[in-house]
Amino acid sequence: MAKEKKQPRPRAETPKGFRDYFGAEVDERKQMLDKIAGVYHRYGFDALESSAVETVEALGKFLPDVDRPNEGVFAWQEADDDKWLALRYDLTAPLARVYAQFRNDLPTPYRRYAMGPVWRNEKPGPGRFRQFYQCDADTVGAASMAADAEICAMLADTLEEVGIPRGDYVIRVNNRKVLNGVLEVMGVAEGETREAVLRTIDKFDKVGEAGVRELLGKGRLDASGAYIDGVGLAEAAAEPVIAFLTSKGADNAATLANLRTAVAESAVGAEGVGELEEIAALLTSQGYGPDRIVIDPSVVRGLGYYTGPVFEAELTFEITDEKGRPRQFGSVAGGGRYDDLVKRFTGQAVPATGISIGVDRLLAALRAKGRVGGATRGPVVVTVMDRDRMADYQAMVAELRAAGIRAEVYLGNPKNFGNQLKYADKRLSPVAVIEGAEEKARGVVQVKDLILGAKIAENATLEEWKERPSQVEVARGDLVAEVARIIGAQDG
Amino acid sequence: MAKEKKQPRPRAETPKGFRDYFGAEVDERKQMLDKIAGVYHRYGFDALESSAVETVEALGKFLPDVDRPNEGVFAWQEADDDKWLALRYDLTAPLARVYAQFRNDLPTPYRRYAMGPVWRNEKPGPGRFRQFYQCDADTVGAASMAADAEICAMLADTLEEVGIPRGDYVIRVNNRKVLNGVLEVMGVAEGETREAVLRTIDKFDKVGEAGVRELLGKGRLDASGAYIDGVGLAEAAAEPVIAFLTSKGADNAATLANLRTAVAESAVGAEGVGELEEIAALLTSQGYGPDRIVIDPSVVRGLGYYTGPVFEAELTFEITDEKGRPRQFGSVAGGGRYDDLVKRFTGQAVPATGISIGVDRLLAALRAKGRVGGATRGPVVVTVMDRDRMADYQAMVAELRAAGIRAEVYLGNPKNFGNQLKYADKRLSPVAVIEGAEEKARGVVQVKDLILGAKIAENATLEEWKERPSQVEVARGDLVAEVARIIGAQDG
Repeated sequence: MAKEKKQPRPRAETPKGFRDYFGAEVDERKQMLDKIAGVYHRYGFDALESSAVETVEALGKFLPDVDRPNEGVFAWQEADDDKWLALRYDLTAPLARVYAQFRNDLPTPYRRYAMGPVWRNEKPGPGRFRQFYQCDADTVGAASMAADAEICAMLADTLEEVGIPRGDYVIRVNNRKVLNGVLEVMGVAEGETREAVLRTIDKFDKVGEAGVRELLGKGRLDASGAYIDGVGLAEAAAEPVIAFLTSKGADNAATLANLRTAVAESAVGAEGVGELEEIAALLTSQGYGPDRIVIDPSVVRGLGYYTGPVFEAELTFEITDEKGRPRQFGSVAGGGRYDDLVKRFTGQAVPATGISIGVDRLLAALRAKGRVGGATRGPVVVTVMDRDRMADYQAMVAELRAAGIRAEVYLGNPKNFGNQLKYADKRLSPVAVIEGAEEKARGVVQVKDLILGAKIAENATLEEWKERPSQVEVARGDLVAEVARIIGAQDG
Repeated sequence: MAKEKKQPRPRAETPKGFRDYFGAEVDERKQMLDKIAGVYHRYGFDALESSAVETVEALGKFLPDVDRPNEGVFAWQEADDDKWLALRYDLTAPLARVYAQFRNDLPTPYRRYAMGPVWRNEKPGPGRFRQFYQCDADTVGAASMAADAEICAMLADTLEEVGIPRGDYVIRVNNRKVLNGVLEVMGVAEGETREAVLRTIDKFDKVGEAGVRELLGKGRLDASGAYIDGVGLAEAAAEPVIAFLTSKGADNAATLANLRTAVAESAVGAEGVGELEEIAALLTSQGYGPDRIVIDPSVVRGLGYYTGPVFEAELTFEITDEKGRPRQFGSVAGGGRYDDLVKRFTGQAVPATGISIGVDRLLAALRAKGRVGGATRGPVVVTVMDRDRMADYQAMVAELRAAGIRAEVYLGNPKNFGNQLKYADKRLSPVAVIEGAEEKARGVVQVKDLILGAKIAENATLEEWKERPSQVEVARGDLVAEVARIIGAQDG
């Protein structure tokens, strides 16, 4: 007989770069997403929950010269037909696939929202996970700038609905076509110089106007002391880009006038400015002033990806970073118009515009503002003094639940009463209920306010613990009323 | 210059065995899950959302003699350390991993619920998908039968909460230990005969008492005419199993008495009967009579997997199957006690018991009962008669939304008015709003009841359409009130 090989025990660990969410973390995210879904629904957007798995072909991540998909996605090969499947890495690529597949059944324009996890096969880092939530809203099949304006207005409403007060956020709007116009004016509408200019613009957030000037010209000594080669444009040639990036004026009208100057004779540039003008006019007439949504050409994030208007929502209040320095909270949502995604499948261009909310960042912002989190409350715990009277304790929790109070019976080994109290502490229980044989005989119960008594209870004996003023004796019939009173007092 | 190779267009299709969920499908499932979560929460269960991705090692699906994990899961290999990762195939294996990993931080007992998709790498079939939802509640670390009774009571409450009325469901409870006792009495507690007897018992649902008798003895001619070899037991030797399977009496007391007889002198059998007795007593004292939860030894599904009590919730009302025959709806949830899952990781046995609701089956049942689905309502559609007055139309939807009415402006090309009405039909809109230049001048709007007028509208011209009685003209200021009135009348 072969010697039985003992299998080593598996390690109990979340895979690298993944995490688990417990209790309040799940509840808080759900409450936020429910509020967001409420706004989206009211705006006429329909829910879509597409398959988490897509063909790699549909995701467009397949590199034909390698034998497996590139690293951005988690992919595997089907056993029967060798097709590569992968987990979705965002919610936009699946939307394009779904719209192309079901376009004859779906209304056009198709307004849809989607919420759910996406997966990225990337190197994990601190606070950077390989599975995270996205929350998107998109309008497919509407070329009108009214669709873009609606997305911005809805985003403003959403931020206020979840608890970001007006004044604590601003949605900035830019337009890719304006930039294209500027590049045209500069004579770099195509080719390598164009790419170099685009890469430089992407650094505007980091290096500012002077830095961009240097990088468009001869080059720049960066903070580490390394010399970064410049694009090599003459100083004058760089002016249109600088004019574009710094064109934000005192109000939208001034900004738009500056942009008109920057794009000069470019037709596509003028079209872009016209689009921004239209969005601004629509939003103004709907009462969304520049305190909430503003034309701001310094928003460059995503300009490469999108084909028209680009949006970015920033939270403007200060938080303290890990080094104790105050800084603005920053971006929590971004989006824009992308008119080519469906075309990949059908050959026909389909206009589309949308927004993606960074769920985890927005939750972090709400926590920073004290809008979620805070004191989490566990269930009322009915302790077990006499294991043969489990039915009595079950009756108590049933009464409490019927009154809308979250409650449970202790289900561990009841022998050590201290363990029951430790358990209630760990559960963040507001109240513990005790009914021993003596209480039962007298028709009373002990009701213990655990918020008041938590720390003392941990090491006290049952006798000491019973003497604390945070504990009261009430008639069994008054149990629910007394528990409700204590919880009410804790809230007050 | 190399000839540019044209990439073929990707196919827009959901991967085989996967599907997408649209609008009302997503909403209805969410509403049901929210109600279930409400009950679980009230019972003191905490939400857990574990990573969708696990190490194959933790899932326990790794076969050491093949170079990749077996077919049940979707798995892939990490690039840096060659570790196999996989999508979870249920919510129980991840719970065992999470509990083993975080046991020092989690309360014990740990009551948790989880809702979310799971993935199975199986051959898809009609109505059988490779991604589907599960909804589980489990108590880890409680050996007490009170935990099992609580799970059953909570399941009954849950079914009623989502809309299955009392009388339309029954939760049946059996116990693996009783069966083990029966096998002991038969002298087949181990070895091949035991396995053969277990496989035969699994067929009880299908072949009934007479069939089981034949299969335990000489064998049986099945419906297809093939002869199935029997286990080969003497007729008398099969009696204890038959007694076990048919021991359901007029009430729980009678059933338990029959079971005591069936397990005779077996200690483990007596322990099993004692557990059932305890569960029955707890439930009775909490008012859960046998009309809701009943001891029923004919429940054999899952007896192989679990280690103690086993539960199954069945819906008892009749539906008409695809062949037009009436049949009972059947099982929507199942579960039981499994005391060995955490042990895989830690070496220490941890008692656990829980339930899993078949989300899609329960939803189908609610649809069959008319508790979800029915008339889905889309948003009110404000049509665009004059594209330069988009702001006017946006103002209307803003007013409607502020009154809690879901509303949207038509964002497609407004040129063809018929397309706007077709769009509203496709959206299942209750009401369309029209304000042309002429209405604007007179300060009125047209409000069209689309439920009344839907069919006519599809082919009518604007002029014909305007004459229909389902359309009324009201002052612009009365828009919201009129829309609310029409929707109210549609509901009535």
